[in-house]
Amino acid sequence: MARTEFPAKATHAQTRAHNASVVLRAIYDLGPISRADIARRTGLTRTSVGDLVADLERDGLAEDVGRGPSTGGKAPTLISLIDDARHAVTLDLGERAFTAALLDLRGRIVRRTTRELDGVDGDQALALVHDLIDDLLAGPHQPLLGIGVGTPGIVDADGTIRWAVNLSWTDLPLARNLREHYRLPTIVTNDSRAAAIAIHLFRDDRDERPANLVAIKVGRGIGAGLVLDGELFGGDGDGAGEIGHIVVEPDGAECHCGRFGCLETVASAPAILRAAAAAGLSETTLPGLAAAAATGDAAALAVTRAAGRALGTAVANLIGILDVREIVVHGSVTALGEPWLAAIRDEATRRSLGPLARETRIIDGGIGEDLTLLGACALLLTSELGLTVHR
Amino acid sequence: MARTEFPAKATHAQTRAHNASVVLRAIYDLGPISRADIARRTGLTRTSVGDLVADLERDGLAEDVGRGPSTGGKAPTLISLIDDARHAVTLDLGERAFTAALLDLRGRIVRRTTRELDGVDGDQALALVHDLIDDLLAGPHQPLLGIGVGTPGIVDADGTIRWAVNLSWTDLPLARNLREHYRLPTIVTNDSRAAAIAIHLFRDDRDERPANLVAIKVGRGIGAGLVLDGELFGGDGDGAGEIGHIVVEPDGAECHCGRFGCLETVASAPAILRAAAAAGLSETTLPGLAAAAATGDAAALAVTRAAGRALGTAVANLIGILDVREIVVHGSVTALGEPWLAAIRDEATRRSLGPLARETRIIDGGIGEDLTLLGACALLLTSELGLTVHR
Repeated sequence: MARTEFPAKATHAQTRAHNASVVLRAIYDLGPISRADIARRTGLTRTSVGDLVADLERDGLAEDVGRGPSTGGKAPTLISLIDDARHAVTLDLGERAFTAALLDLRGRIVRRTTRELDGVDGDQALALVHDLIDDLLAGPHQPLLGIGVGTPGIVDADGTIRWAVNLSWTDLPLARNLREHYRLPTIVTNDSRAAAIAIHLFRDDRDERPANLVAIKVGRGIGAGLVLDGELFGGDGDGAGEIGHIVVEPDGAECHCGRFGCLETVASAPAILRAAAAAGLSETTLPGLAAAAATGDAAALAVTRAAGRALGTAVANLIGILDVREIVVHGSVTALGEPWLAAIRDEATRRSLGPLARETRIIDGGIGEDLTLLGACALLLTSELGLTVHR
Repeated sequence: MARTEFPAKATHAQTRAHNASVVLRAIYDLGPISRADIARRTGLTRTSVGDLVADLERDGLAEDVGRGPSTGGKAPTLISLIDDARHAVTLDLGERAFTAALLDLRGRIVRRTTRELDGVDGDQALALVHDLIDDLLAGPHQPLLGIGVGTPGIVDADGTIRWAVNLSWTDLPLARNLREHYRLPTIVTNDSRAAAIAIHLFRDDRDERPANLVAIKVGRGIGAGLVLDGELFGGDGDGAGEIGHIVVEPDGAECHCGRFGCLETVASAPAILRAAAAAGLSETTLPGLAAAAATGDAAALAVTRAAGRALGTAVANLIGILDVREIVVHGSVTALGEPWLAAIRDEATRRSLGPLARETRIIDGGIGEDLTLLGACALLLTSELGLTVHR
């Protein structure tokens, strides 16, 4: 998309806002922490840190929590984030059910409510979104950061859902709709992308994480979220990561997108279960198929490995194009377990340049039930509190 | 790669350096321009602009060039970049020859010198690099920005060439070598990446360019440069864009990387000429093959289209993964012209999601003879003058 704006000057107000978020980030990541340590870690003066901490305490985001160990003089007062100071309303518009939840500033789920979709789509699905939010807001909650929604489909940067085939939504301005109705900051993003940012932000080994991460959601559909240089990458049309519709078998089965042989037609949950049926297997669920493979059923193992190899081809392209060292697979298909993962790894290694493939870890992220909710919360933390994910 | 540093405060010195580069960028992009217009376009005060312009004039980078049209009062003095104020030493370590050139601040080539490789590699190839630089420095030149080198192979962020198979270079610290010998700022980067940044920075329709661009060099090898959100993207190991070694035919021909069926084994210049020979064609050059196809030779056309389709598969992956709206192909294989381009476009469209593929332009960048030199210059402009490519 053409951008014509000119680089802007840095103003003192921007400098102060930047420094305020640096202090909040220090408290968020390192707290309980003393003012002196914040100053040391951020390079800010003690006076600036004192002023900025006072602002955060006045806003109810941070508090003094007693004294730390003395390093000679008076023991310093430690400052901590008030984890429950704000709540985020987050939604996961899932394949079979919609879930809404209140999360605190650490991404902990305070309350959740789920409704089965039961084939509902279009306006009725939209009404369900409102019902779920109304439910949450009727209960007790802290001041709200905003509303964050993870949805399947291609979502514009302004939160318009361009295309969500299973929900029969086309060009639905969901973010605007919710913002106008609830008068709260609202972010709507693709669910695979929300999951990627959740994995990136909320994992434990923060100091070890690479700058780049691809998280592939493999369930009813297949989509990836790209975290590049610490930030979600959307591409020119916010369709980056839509790998489920790259054609891998030009003469393959018809896809719901209208093409033939998309990755989803060979590696998604429905495709795998279709392949199992075609191979004469009686298992109709992924855990069932995994159990059959585990007992040594050759047909079940063959179906499992074929699905893994198809995904491995896509992973090889991700490695070759992006040289990314961490790829997490998550979603319902991870139920296929080790034989499926091994096939992904084998094919990815076989199809990509040795020096690159050797460095890339392919990680099982499990079902990842709450990843979309966590990611929606993470995006609100970034946009509303400046807790930028960029390191 | 793990990064443990903490976000840094913004200091007044950083603010001033940032604002200085904003002013230089305004003069670079919009000059001749008045101080008042710079202030208006950048949001800086007229006093700040006056001080920063004075600094640039003192450094010999900008000068007053007379008066512009009056808008009521006294006609304003216009400021212009002195295009020839600095020279960059740039090198293109090409497939058959090494070229070194002096470029001015606009990327115009002031002087160039080329030496055929004649099979030279290893230490002799390194000596050739020094010879070429010595040649240029022996002639007249302006104060030097530094040395910029574009080379085939995988290059680390610190300018060490990890692997350049045709030159028999492994783990060669070329940037350090040149920096220590010539005492000049030195950047060494992959040639496909240098070309991508050149296309991004030096094209005429600056206001129209998309935020993302992939430039694929298709010659003896195949490699891409990724400009994402206005900046070169290197990946975790500086191997991003190494698409030439993604396996597209697992049972295909052996590649010089040791694998089988890499994209280079079907879509590079040598692969295409091998396919032409195998098809019984007498043409031994790409222009010759193109001429035969143009006269309607069915075999020549089939070889041309097959090469285009193979590259189109890679392009479909680029579109699906990155949702990039502009893909430029350049290098010697572009001699195959329209039938080859049409095959790339057809296959890319056939293999990617309709809404994404429709928006992507696939552009013929031609031989792109000077792109590597220009890109090396662009990277020096960014690192030495803060003329950041990020918009």
